[in-house]
Amino acid sequence: MKETEISTLGEFGLIEHLTRSFPVRNESTRRGVGDDCAVINYGNDRETLVTTDLLLEGIHFDLTYVPLMHLGYKAIVVNLSDVYAMNGTPRQVTVSLGISKRFTLEHIEQLYEGMRIACEHYGVDLVGGDTSASVTGLIISVTCLGEAARDDIVYRTGARDTDLICVSGNLGAAYMGLQLLERERQVSAQMKDKDFEPDFSGKEYIIERQLKPEARRDVTDELRELGIRPTAMMDVSDGLSSELLHICKDSGVGCRVYEDRIPIDYETALMAEELNMNLVTAAMNGGEDYELLFTVPLADHDKVARMKTARLIGRITKPELGACLVTRDDQELEIRAQGWNAFSPTDSKDK
Amino acid sequence: MKETEISTLGEFGLIEHLTRSFPVRNESTRRGVGDDCAVINYGNDRETLVTTDLLLEGIHFDLTYVPLMHLGYKAIVVNLSDVYAMNGTPRQVTVSLGISKRFTLEHIEQLYEGMRIACEHYGVDLVGGDTSASVTGLIISVTCLGEAARDDIVYRTGARDTDLICVSGNLGAAYMGLQLLERERQVSAQMKDKDFEPDFSGKEYIIERQLKPEARRDVTDELRELGIRPTAMMDVSDGLSSELLHICKDSGVGCRVYEDRIPIDYETALMAEELNMNLVTAAMNGGEDYELLFTVPLADHDKVARMKTARLIGRITKPELGACLVTRDDQELEIRAQGWNAFSPTDSKDK
Repeated sequence: MKETEISTLGEFGLIEHLTRSFPVRNESTRRGVGDDCAVINYGNDRETLVTTDLLLEGIHFDLTYVPLMHLGYKAIVVNLSDVYAMNGTPRQVTVSLGISKRFTLEHIEQLYEGMRIACEHYGVDLVGGDTSASVTGLIISVTCLGEAARDDIVYRTGARDTDLICVSGNLGAAYMGLQLLERERQVSAQMKDKDFEPDFSGKEYIIERQLKPEARRDVTDELRELGIRPTAMMDVSDGLSSELLHICKDSGVGCRVYEDRIPIDYETALMAEELNMNLVTAAMNGGEDYELLFTVPLADHDKVARMKTARLIGRITKPELGACLVTRDDQELEIRAQGWNAFSPTDSKDK
Repeated sequence: MKETEISTLGEFGLIEHLTRSFPVRNESTRRGVGDDCAVINYGNDRETLVTTDLLLEGIHFDLTYVPLMHLGYKAIVVNLSDVYAMNGTPRQVTVSLGISKRFTLEHIEQLYEGMRIACEHYGVDLVGGDTSASVTGLIISVTCLGEAARDDIVYRTGARDTDLICVSGNLGAAYMGLQLLERERQVSAQMKDKDFEPDFSGKEYIIERQLKPEARRDVTDELRELGIRPTAMMDVSDGLSSELLHICKDSGVGCRVYEDRIPIDYETALMAEELNMNLVTAAMNGGEDYELLFTVPLADHDKVARMKTARLIGRITKPELGACLVTRDDQELEIRAQGWNAFSPTDSKDK
């Protein structure tokens, strides 16, 4: 039998490859695989949005520095983020857990407490799930359902030439937070028996961005208040580069994004300098930002300029111009997806 | 910190304990945790049903005797079964996978081929998912969405005194199939280098019940044709005893089920004899049957007597009479849940 290593396809290649032979049979399936959420309609004017995420210990999180309560919070939030990225409102979640013997009930209660706080904060109901033992490690699978009026839903496919590209908040902070946590974990491991207290003072923001990300409900609220309807939108989970390429591919367009417009927090910049890492690379490819990336018609320029939660970072072009980052010295660098890949041996947090 | 072993609560105790502090906030959440599916409505006359299942290698399946294609088929079917158990129609599934390094693309293609066949057979659309590396083993999380008219949905809470209890197909076959596969695996392991060919002739049915279960769409179809609306219904995944107790508890009733009415296939009986196991225990507690257990008003007696897919096995009583199995010699044995428990050390297939 032929043997193909899965890492040669990458996550998106794998999903595309595997789902190719699944036709859509139900009229109620308005949109299947290929966006932040699936869109389903059982015959009313409100659409149902569905998204799901699997978080695995040793791959997506490391419990030596991620508190279980934060992990629970984050597991919910990353799913809500996908519903907001469709311009929808998350309503329900299901949570499935695989739990190895090293976890006690009190551990799982902490995890659920984080989930409870997230559900409360975002007004979402936990409506089901499945719980089982696991051979090793903690496994968390969350599915989120949400709703949206049909005409409000924003896909990845609607970006058009001359549209403006915007992104909320700032980028690269969660990634630099992860680098810091990882460094402190290694120092701690070297010091073994000694009392080791990592010092995160002055770096609270990037740590929080990694451990307790938020879904940008406020961005979709502000878009609505200002009467802006994005032409395309998605959340930045794998890194800005990767997401820009998704929008360009799915909308059949190119883009120009300006280096000097990429929003970066002060702590992110300091940490990159301290670790001697390239700041723009971290911001473009870091991932786990859970910010919203969206495009709007050129005519909405004045409206987006007034936005408090997002800023203009570039523009959509004709497809033949490709996707490029315009550097401070006016060079055009082709954007490549260097986002986090769960199948890449160098990316997996545990090797 | 207090340390409570999770196995002391069991799966249902754990879920009840953990979800207690999650109130329902959204009007659209008609039914949350506690039935085969959650029920959701975004403002139309069709309800949305949601269910999710997590299947873990070494806990729920053993790839030494489960072909990947069958596993894919089964992973879908067990979720569809939950939607039929609400008297709904499954429409969409999402599939999340965690894949360890020992799996190649071709392996995962086989898994998906089984899923594809199940989706085709039941007319269901694959609409999303998440795919990731895993540290060890294969992880499959499936969520299913379905629909039903509001008045058609059957919960576990509606059984009333004097109702008749029915079950579809036959029970214990999947469990005896598992015992056979497990025995052959052990023999094979002892013979190591020698060519070992397990002999399943005359036992194809119980093997198929374990490896390739079906969801009983035909039962809900027949109920509709005969104009029978069950008062309570659920699928038999953990074993008849466990499910009867769920219905009794959730409906606030008792029950009498007659040993001589429990449907058992010939192959199941032969295998139990061969392995020197108690047949009724296997049928009552085996699990993974994916048959439908339902109750109907006494007035429907003549209608259910005509059913081809299900038979009468007992009756609902007042709660103070408890839940009992009436043996062939007219003794009343209290029914206890001995169904499969993923947290019990003796149940886990890998110890």
